Amino acid sequence: MAKEALFDYVLGLADDALILGHRLSEWCGHAPLLEEELALGNIGLDLIGEARSLYDYAGALEGNGRDQDALAYRRDAPQFRNLLLVEHPNGDFAMTIARQFLYAAYAAPFWRRMAGSRDATLAAVAATAKDETAYHLRHAEGWVARLGDGTDESHRRMQAALDTLWPYTGEMFEAPEALVADGVAADLALIQAEWHETVATRLDAVGLCPPADGWMQSGGRHGRHSEHLGYILAELQFLQRAYPGARW
Amino acid sequence: MAKEALFDYVLGLADDALILGHRLSEWCGHAPLLEEELALGNIGLDLIGEARSLYDYAGALEGNGRDQDALAYRRDAPQFRNLLLVEHPNGDFAMTIARQFLYAAYAAPFWRRMAGSRDATLAAVAATAKDETAYHLRHAEGWVARLGDGTDESHRRMQAALDTLWPYTGEMFEAPEALVADGVAADLALIQAEWHETVATRLDAVGLCPPADGWMQSGGRHGRHSEHLGYILAELQFLQRAYPGARW
Repeated sequence: MAKEALFDYVLGLADDALILGHRLSEWCGHAPLLEEELALGNIGLDLIGEARSLYDYAGALEGNGRDQDALAYRRDAPQFRNLLLVEHPNGDFAMTIARQFLYAAYAAPFWRRMAGSRDATLAAVAATAKDETAYHLRHAEGWVARLGDGTDESHRRMQAALDTLWPYTGEMFEAPEALVADGVAADLALIQAEWHETVATRLDAVGLCPPADGWMQSGGRHGRHSEHLGYILAELQFLQRAYPGARW
Repeated sequence: MAKEALFDYVLGLADDALILGHRLSEWCGHAPLLEEELALGNIGLDLIGEARSLYDYAGALEGNGRDQDALAYRRDAPQFRNLLLVEHPNGDFAMTIARQFLYAAYAAPFWRRMAGSRDATLAAVAATAKDETAYHLRHAEGWVARLGDGTDESHRRMQAALDTLWPYTGEMFEAPEALVADGVAADLALIQAEWHETVATRLDAVGLCPPADGWMQSGGRHGRHSEHLGYILAELQFLQRAYPGARW
């Protein structure tokens, strides 16, 4: 099994967690209620913790001394391998919740299955991530129900957010086939079926419609990103770019 | 005359122009009409051109090899000396226009008087800047009239923008006394009187009220900035921070 393919795979998972964690951190001081401020902050921290473990592993696989900071702070946008979905702007609260829901409905079963990976390090990361992402999904489901079943305005905004984000969901299920065959990566076809089931059930319960599957956005896993990622990195990487190698 | 005081003075003027120019560039692709897109872009370019000349001069005064790029891209927020007014976010179009108007009503007479500075380099910069800023003022006055005398909504927004920005106007008139005494810096007391006259006349003509002078914000000229400047620099400096010394 090519080490490069595993490195790319781990890096993609790490980048998903870092970028989504950063997006959630943007709500800090702006969430609609204090309880939610703490919830989104905690979910962000879970994801950044997950990213750290995965960057450690990616650095070890690569074997030329890049640590967590080097991978997170000293790569430019075309070297990032995250899904386009997670770099999508927070928008209003419904947009953030829709993004959380669509992502967590994939991440929870993904990490549950990754706990059985033949790769011991990924299985160890998954042992923690599966519980965290199961909670992230429950949190998002609660808000999908409240916003979908709330006022006309909240319902309309949830539907608009789902319509906007739907074309970014296909990319979650692009499988690295060789790694699946080796038992290292989870089989995304099974996860996709579970994702569809979760999404359809939760939306249907509050009268929201899963948009039709049409043309899907793609490219994040290959370094072709939206303009948003550049702005995220400008902010996220400022300190290490301005003070290279700074420690505290 | 202390070279350090002149360096600080020139740097403050350069930073005003760079940061306001950058703020205006943020309207690129977002202005309410094409004509205005081009106008704001051109004003931004005038300001950045002015900043370049002033950075050249500041670098020469300092005499240890920092060029335009070093001064613009490789200083952190506490080293910036710009007015807090120019780092204020664009807000809605009225906020941007109010900021332009309040600043240009100072900058136009400032540069007109600086054309008579005993410092030959500053006088040369002023020879161009006085015509440009006179146009910037005319542009802003036109919009103050249109928005102030437009709809109830546009009038309300202009007044709200003036109320928000007013406490940032006092800082424009903090004079570097030694440089004024030397005939290098313009006498800001005279400029302040002219500014008050311009502002009162233009606002009064369309029923807008100059807010009362109360407590004034200060600190930008000493490197104490709002949180906004950090975000501006993260974006503005990304390229030189990520690729130090890059040329094209």
